[in-house]
Amino acid sequence: MTDENARHTEKMNKIKAARDRMMANKTEEKGLIMVHTGPGKGKSSSGFGMIMRCISHGMPVAVVQFIKGNWATGERDFLRTHFPDEVKFHVSGEGFTWETQDRERDIAKAEAGWELAKELIRDPANRFVMLDEINIALRNDYLNIDDVVDFLLEEKPDMTHVLLTGRNAKPELIEAADLVTEMSLVKHPFRDGIKAQQGVEF
Amino acid sequence: MTDENARHTEKMNKIKAARDRMMANKTEEKGLIMVHTGPGKGKSSSGFGMIMRCISHGMPVAVVQFIKGNWATGERDFLRTHFPDEVKFHVSGEGFTWETQDRERDIAKAEAGWELAKELIRDPANRFVMLDEINIALRNDYLNIDDVVDFLLEEKPDMTHVLLTGRNAKPELIEAADLVTEMSLVKHPFRDGIKAQQGVEF
Repeated sequence: MTDENARHTEKMNKIKAARDRMMANKTEEKGLIMVHTGPGKGKSSSGFGMIMRCISHGMPVAVVQFIKGNWATGERDFLRTHFPDEVKFHVSGEGFTWETQDRERDIAKAEAGWELAKELIRDPANRFVMLDEINIALRNDYLNIDDVVDFLLEEKPDMTHVLLTGRNAKPELIEAADLVTEMSLVKHPFRDGIKAQQGVEF
Repeated sequence: MTDENARHTEKMNKIKAARDRMMANKTEEKGLIMVHTGPGKGKSSSGFGMIMRCISHGMPVAVVQFIKGNWATGERDFLRTHFPDEVKFHVSGEGFTWETQDRERDIAKAEAGWELAKELIRDPANRFVMLDEINIALRNDYLNIDDVVDFLLEEKPDMTHVLLTGRNAKPELIEAADLVTEMSLVKHPFRDGIKAQQGVEF
């Protein structure tokens, strides 16, 4: 086994042990660590669907969006217009789109988003916290995966759900999570020259 | 090639031809036939996320739910409470859950739902129509797949999006659709004895 493999195995075992410790203290009702990943559609939209359920149940929600993109404008406008009290909505990447070519600035934005996310998760009043597209920041190593996983396993309040979205979720996060869904693309209209559609894509 | 294979190929070619005819008349902007399938989570929730986008854009929405289940109570209550004007919400299976052992009644409910769905889709005022869990009715042959596919390809107004959800989507529907997403289950908390959670599952 190479050193790298050994380190990987050790790390995964450590995450599993932390997860087992956390599970040992649980009753059957608990807040979940959830991941929506894969190249298909619906990773963020299904999170917004869950937000509707939470609002319906009177569970306060917080969202930190790690990338600003047109694709989420509809949901953001919707929540800000109709549910400013029920949902705290933050865009850590406001004003940039990962296309700035300014890595230092991107890292600073991602770190600011993560600091805010930790604050929101630590407050047990927030029952559902969505970290939208954080997997992109993790994949680019703008955030440290160990810091994120350790925080979720050690500091997340028992009854808080946290949803992390974005393609290419890191294996450490999948190991730590309770519920992981992969969205795969079977067929996409862009292949046929159809452009992005209002209501579907944004 | 067996007779059955030959029939299948002929049928698929017919669907493809109908789809090509429809596409030939399109500009690059069009209403889409969309399918969310697979055993994973998020098939319905991401549809409800799209509904939020549509409301935000002022696009009228209609939903026909082909199975009544607790899992969707949150979304249904949410839409009925907050957006009774923006979203027409119908439950064709109200009062039954596919567990009635009464196949005739289930078929009658599914057919009533499909009649209503056609009426809603034919009205071009409805810009997004969600047929929630219709794939279950199709898979059980409570509805005829050819009728459904023919209707969508021939009668759906140009700018209307239709979303069909549920696991085990039939191949004819996938052939007819513009956008197909498969949700796969990577990890699920029920395996660890955690029960369904408010805000996540219902």
